[in-house]
Amino acid sequence: MQTRIEVGILGATGMVGQHFIKFLQGHPLFDLTWLGASDRSAGKQYKDAMTWHLAGGTPETVANRTVDECKPGNAPRLLFSAMDAGVATEIERAFAEAGHIVVSNSRNHRMEADVPLLVPEVNPDHLRLVPGQRLSRGWKGGIVTNPNCSTIGLVMALGPLKQFGITKVLVTTMQAISGAGYPGVPSMDIMGNVVPFIGGEEEKMEMETHKILGEFAGDHIEPLAAKVSAHCNRVPVVDGHTETVSVEFATKPSKHDVLHALESFHALPQQRNLPSAPKHPVIYMHEANRPQPRKDAERERGMAAFVGRLRPCHVLDFKFVVLSHNTIRGAAGAAVLNAELMQSEGMLD
Amino acid sequence: MQTRIEVGILGATGMVGQHFIKFLQGHPLFDLTWLGASDRSAGKQYKDAMTWHLAGGTPETVANRTVDECKPGNAPRLLFSAMDAGVATEIERAFAEAGHIVVSNSRNHRMEADVPLLVPEVNPDHLRLVPGQRLSRGWKGGIVTNPNCSTIGLVMALGPLKQFGITKVLVTTMQAISGAGYPGVPSMDIMGNVVPFIGGEEEKMEMETHKILGEFAGDHIEPLAAKVSAHCNRVPVVDGHTETVSVEFATKPSKHDVLHALESFHALPQQRNLPSAPKHPVIYMHEANRPQPRKDAERERGMAAFVGRLRPCHVLDFKFVVLSHNTIRGAAGAAVLNAELMQSEGMLD
Amino acid sequence: MQTRIEVGILGATGMVGQHFIKFLQGHPLFDLTWLGASDRSAGKQYKDAMTWHLAGGTPETVANRTVDECKPGNAPRLLFSAMDAGVATEIERAFAEAGHIVVSNSRNHRMEADVPLLVPEVNPDHLRLVPGQRLSRGWKGGIVTNPNCSTIGLVMALGPLKQFGITKVLVTTMQAISGAGYPGVPSMDIMGNVVPFIGGEEEKMEMETHKILGEFAGDHIEPLAAKVSAHCNRVPVVDGHTETVSVEFATKPSKHDVLHALESFHALPQQRNLPSAPKHPVIYMHEANRPQPRKDAERERGMAAFVGRLRPCHVLDFKFVVLSHNTIRGAAGAAVLNAELMQSEGMLD
Amino acid sequence: MQTRIEVGILGATGMVGQHFIKFLQGHPLFDLTWLGASDRSAGKQYKDAMTWHLAGGTPETVANRTVDECKPGNAPRLLFSAMDAGVATEIERAFAEAGHIVVSNSRNHRMEADVPLLVPEVNPDHLRLVPGQRLSRGWKGGIVTNPNCSTIGLVMALGPLKQFGITKVLVTTMQAISGAGYPGVPSMDIMGNVVPFIGGEEEKMEMETHKILGEFAGDHIEPLAAKVSAHCNRVPVVDGHTETVSVEFATKPSKHDVLHALESFHALPQQRNLPSAPKHPVIYMHEANRPQPRKDAERERGMAAFVGRLRPCHVLDFKFVVLSHNTIRGAAGAAVLNAELMQSEGMLD
Repeated sequence: MQTRIEVGILGATGMVGQHFIKFLQGHPLFDLTWLGASDRSAGKQYKDAMTWHLAGGTPETVANRTVDECKPGNAPRLLFSAMDAGVATEIERAFAEAGHIVVSNSRNHRMEADVPLLVPEVNPDHLRLVPGQRLSRGWKGGIVTNPNCSTIGLVMALGPLKQFGITKVLVTTMQAISGAGYPGVPSMDIMGNVVPFIGGEEEKMEMETHKILGEFAGDHIEPLAAKVSAHCNRVPVVDGHTETVSVEFATKPSKHDVLHALESFHALPQQRNLPSAPKHPVIYMHEANRPQPRKDAERERGMAAFVGRLRPCHVLDFKFVVLSHNTIRGAAGAAVLNAELMQSEGMLD
Repeated sequence: MQTRIEVGILGATGMVGQHFIKFLQGHPLFDLTWLGASDRSAGKQYKDAMTWHLAGGTPETVANRTVDECKPGNAPRLLFSAMDAGVATEIERAFAEAGHIVVSNSRNHRMEADVPLLVPEVNPDHLRLVPGQRLSRGWKGGIVTNPNCSTIGLVMALGPLKQFGITKVLVTTMQAISGAGYPGVPSMDIMGNVVPFIGGEEEKMEMETHKILGEFAGDHIEPLAAKVSAHCNRVPVVDGHTETVSVEFATKPSKHDVLHALESFHALPQQRNLPSAPKHPVIYMHEANRPQPRKDAERERGMAAFVGRLRPCHVLDFKFVVLSHNTIRGAAGAAVLNAELMQSEGMLD
Repeated sequence: MQTRIEVGILGATGMVGQHFIKFLQGHPLFDLTWLGASDRSAGKQYKDAMTWHLAGGTPETVANRTVDECKPGNAPRLLFSAMDAGVATEIERAFAEAGHIVVSNSRNHRMEADVPLLVPEVNPDHLRLVPGQRLSRGWKGGIVTNPNCSTIGLVMALGPLKQFGITKVLVTTMQAISGAGYPGVPSMDIMGNVVPFIGGEEEKMEMETHKILGEFAGDHIEPLAAKVSAHCNRVPVVDGHTETVSVEFATKPSKHDVLHALESFHALPQQRNLPSAPKHPVIYMHEANRPQPRKDAERERGMAAFVGRLRPCHVLDFKFVVLSHNTIRGAAGAAVLNAELMQSEGMLD
Repeated sequence: MQTRIEVGILGATGMVGQHFIKFLQGHPLFDLTWLGASDRSAGKQYKDAMTWHLAGGTPETVANRTVDECKPGNAPRLLFSAMDAGVATEIERAFAEAGHIVVSNSRNHRMEADVPLLVPEVNPDHLRLVPGQRLSRGWKGGIVTNPNCSTIGLVMALGPLKQFGITKVLVTTMQAISGAGYPGVPSMDIMGNVVPFIGGEEEKMEMETHKILGEFAGDHIEPLAAKVSAHCNRVPVVDGHTETVSVEFATKPSKHDVLHALESFHALPQQRNLPSAPKHPVIYMHEANRPQPRKDAERERGMAAFVGRLRPCHVLDFKFVVLSHNTIRGAAGAAVLNAELMQSEGMLD
C-alpha cells in the first residue's frame, strides 16, 4: 500500500485556497495537514480566518485547524501555493530554498526560464527543468507552476494537434467571474454585460501558450514558433471559460485527422492512472451547440477540456470551441495533478 | 416644410414589429398609419393582438389601432417589414409587385442579386440595384434590406477601413438574447451560460459582409475579395452584440491610420443629416475596458457602432472590439435609416 | 440482502422525467427498468426521444433504452409519474386501476380527498388514506403524490413547529426558473428581472399547506385550521426556491423553543434510515446571510430544507428564511422518498 | 420667467452623486454649478476624479468641472448630499450651520426628531419641522432627508391608503444590486442567487415607514401606530426594488376602495406641477404579472411607484406588489423633488 504524503497550502484562506481544500477532500495520496496564510489569519482557526465562498460549506476536516504563518518551519515538504501575486514571489522562493516543493498556481514564477509551466498531458518532460533550477539557485526544493485559467483549455486542445505543426492561433475567451477571485468582479460591472478586457490576460495567454507547447532545451524551454493572438472577455458565467479558437497548421491535416487526434488523445497522466487525471483529457462533444459552461464544465470532476464544433475556418484552417473549468482544471486541480505527476516520477521521495 | 410620409409595418405584432413602433414614435418624417399582421391578429385592436415585450409599454398612438391583414390594398406605399422568415418571401414580393416600397429587416431577400443589402454609411450606392430589380421583375415597387443584427456592427467598423484593402477578417460574436425574438432563448439555456452556436448565423455574417463591402456592378454586387470567418455565441445580455475582430489589410496601415479612419468616419447619412443617423457612425471609446453592451449600446439612440481596444494582432494585423445595438441599429433603426436614405434620394416620391 | 425493486417513469422525456432518471442513478433499492412517454417518443431509443437539459449529460444506463407508451402492460408495478398536468389525470388513473403504485409528482390528484399528499418527515400517517382509496375506487394499485415545489420547503420548516399551534402563515417565494420546466420561462422575461406572478402557484401553496399539515380523519384529511397567504415570484436563479416566512403560533413559544424544534427535528425517514432521506430534514444555518440558493440548495443531495435568520416578527410571531431544491426535494427526490417510505411500510410487497 | 437656482452636490464622485448629476441634466429650475467630494478628488477635473458607472457616459456639462472640497465656502446655498454614511453626519451639519439647505439622501439624519424624512406626495407637512430645527440648533440653513431606497416604494403605495387606518404591514423586498453602490455586491455573491439579508435594511424600512406615515406634532413626528415587519433580500436585478406587501386596515375597505385610492392618488407635487413629479405618483398596472423591474422601473422617468396584483390576503386584509426605481425615486430623484417642494413653499428664497 502506498504511503500517504502530507501537504500544505500557502494562501489557504483566499478563494483559490478554498478550491485547493475542496479538491483535496478524500484525495487518495495527499493528506492536507497544514494551512498557511497571512499574519492576520495566523493563529486563528480556519473557520474564523475566512469566509467560505464555495458551494457546500467549509469542510469539517479543516474548519477547526489552526492557520499558520507562511514561513518555512512547520509546513510539510509538499506545498500548494494559492498566494496572491503581490506576495507570492518572495514567499514561494523562501519555501523552495528551505527545501519545499512548491506547486504553485500563482503567476509569479511561470515565465522564469528554469521553472516548468506544466500541463501533465501536454508537456510532462518540462519537469526536466527542475534539476537545473535547484542547481543554479542552490535550492533543496523547487517551484513548479500551472498555467493561467484561460490558457489551460487552449493548450489542452492544442496539445494533441501539435503533431500537425501549429503555425497560427487566434483565440477569443468568454471567461467566468470566478476567475477573478473574491470579491472580484463587481456585479454592477458584469450583470447582463460583457467586459471586453481583463488586465494582463491576453499577454499571459499568448506567452504561456508559447512556453507550454515549446520544447525542453536543457536549461530553458524553446517556445513554440507559432503566432498566437488572444482577445479576452469577461461574461456573466459563474464557472467555466469558453473559448473560440481558429488554428492554422503547417501540414494541412484533414478534419478527420484533427477530430481523431482530439478524440484519441491519451497522455502520460492517463497511462499512469494519476488520481486526478480525467479519463480522457479532451472530450469532443458532437452536439451542435456544445460545450456550454453551466452544463458541461463540471463533468469529469472539472478536469477535462471539452471541445466541440470543429469545422473549417475561412481565414485559418480549422475552428472550434473549447471549455474548461477555470477554478478546477484552471487552478487547484491543475496543481494537484502536477504534484501527482511529480510523485509518479519519484520527485517527491 | 417637408411633407410627412405615411408608413406601415408588415408583421407589427412580433418583437421586431414592436421595435419598429417604438423607434418610429415622434419620427420627423414618417407617420405610422398602418399595422399589418397575420390573419389571427387582423381585425383586432393592436393592444389585444399582442403582448408588449419592450420596456415602457405599448405606445398610446398604436394601442387602439386596428390591425390589418398583410395583403396589398389599404397599406401606405412605404412599408417596413418585420415578418418572420417563414412567411416573408411571398408577402414581401406581393407588396413590391403591387407598388410598395418594402424596406425589410427579414433575411429572405438579402442575398438576392438585385436586392440592396443596405447600410447607408457603408454602401449607399447599392441602392442603384433598385431600377434593375424593378425592370427585371416587372415591379412597380421594390425591396431593400438591412443586414442581420450580428453583421451590422462588423461592417460599420470595417466600412471606414475598406480603404486599406481588407484581406482577412476573423470575428467572434457575443450576442444578446433579444436577437432571438420572443419567446426566443429559454432561460434554462442561457442563464449563467454561453451557447456557442446560433443556427445559420455564421454563414449569414460571412456572406452579408462580403456583399455589403462589395462593389456595385450594374446588375449585381461584386463581393469583397476577402476571407471572412465568424464564430457566433449567445451570452446572457439583454441588448447589444459585442464582437472581437481581427483584420488583415493589404496596405499595412499604421495604428494611427486605422484609428483616424474610424474616428473621422463621416458618411452620406451624416452629411445629409438624416433624422435617424447617428452624429458619428463609429464612436471610438478610449477607456481600456469599453465598449460594453449594458452600459454603451443605448448611447446615440442605439444607432452608432462603438469600437474600442484597437491594438496590433499577432496573427492578422489589428484587432479591436465592436458593439452595436442589435434590435435598433441591427433591426428597426437600420430599416428606418434605409428609408430615410431612399427619401433623400427621391426614391419615395 | 434486500430484494431490489423494478421501477418505471411515466413522462420520462420531460425535464422532471430527466430529474427522476438522474436521481435514481445508483439507487440502493430501485432499479429503473422502464421508461414511458408520449406516442411520439414511444419506440425510440431514449437518447433520440429527448434533448437532455440537465448538467452532466444523459446517463448511459438509459441512453439506449427503448421508450414505451404510457399504457399499462409492460411497466413494472412501481411507477414514478412526471407527466404533464394536461394528461396526467387519465393516465395515472389507468395505471392505478391496473394495479400499479403511481408515486406522482403531477399536481392532478394532489387535492383529491383520498389521495395522500405526502411528505415523509411531516405527515407519514397520511399514507393511511391508501386502503380507502383502493376500496372506494376499486383499484388494485393506488396513487400517492408529493407537493408542489414551492410548498415543500415551507411545510418542511413548519412540520416541526406544528406542536406550537400554527395559526397564521405569510410567505413570499423567490422561485428558480427550473421550476417551470423546459423551455419554461423565456430569457427575455426573467434575465435581470423579477416576475411577481406564477399562475396558480399561490393557490397551490395555500391549499397544499393546509392538507399536508392536516390530520388524518379516516377517509380524508382534516386541513390545518390556520390562515395561509402566499406571494409567489420568479427570480433569475437556476435551482432552489427561497422563501421568506412569517408565522403566528397559538402557544407563543420562545425563540429558543422554535430554534430547538427546527434543529432537533428528526422524523420517520431518518429513524428508518431511508436511502434518500437527508440526515437532518431541516438544517438551520447560523450565518447572517444564509441560506442562499446557488450556494446551499445542493447540499445534502438537495433533500433537506435549509432555514436561517429566525427572528421575531413585529406583525406575526417569528420570521425566517427557508430554501429547498425545487427539482430534487421539490420533485423527483420527493417522490422517490415517498416510495421508500411506502416500501418501509410494506406497501410495495 | 422663473429665476434659476444654483445647486451643488456633496459627494459628487460616488455612484449616488453620479445619479444626481444625471438626474439634474436639463433641470428647468436647478443649475448644477458645484461639485464637492473628498480631499482625494478635490482640485481634479470631475472626469479624472471618478469612474463613471452609469449607462450613457459622463455628461459633458460636468466632465471638466473642477471638484471642490466638502467645506462651506464656495458652494451654492442649496446642496444635494450623496455622502457616504461614514462621513455625512459632520459634513452635512457643518453646511447646515453655515446657512446651506442640505437636501440629503444619506441615512445619517433621517431619524432625528427635528429632521423631515420627506416624501412630497405623502407627508409634505413634515417640512414644518424645519423652523424648529433651525431654532433649536442655531442653524441658518437646515437638513431635509429622503427615505431609504427600499422604503420609498412601500410608503408611496401606503400613502393613499392611510385613510383606511393602516394597522399592520408585512413586506418582503427583492432589491436591485444598484442599491448597494459601487463596487457594491460582488458578482460571486449575487449571480444566479438570492441573498436573504441586507445589513440594517429591515430596521430602516420599519422605522422610516413609521415616521413618514406619522403625524407632525410640533417639534417631532408622532409615528404611525401600526405594526410593520420587513424581510429584505438582494436579487440579481440591476435597477428597481420589487416588494410584496400585505396590509391590514382598521376600517376594512373593499378591494374597490383600495384600488380607487391607489389609482386616484394625486398629491401636492402633482397639484403644483413640480418639475420632477410624476404625473401619477402611483401607477396601478392591471396586467396579471406586473410590475417588473427591468420592464417598468424606468417608466415615468423612474419617479412613480408601480403597483399591481391587488387581491385579498388570507392573513391580513389585502396584498399587492409595488416596484420603484431605487436610484431615481429611491435616491437622486427623491432629493430633487424634495428641493422642488421646498422651492414651491418659498423655503429656498
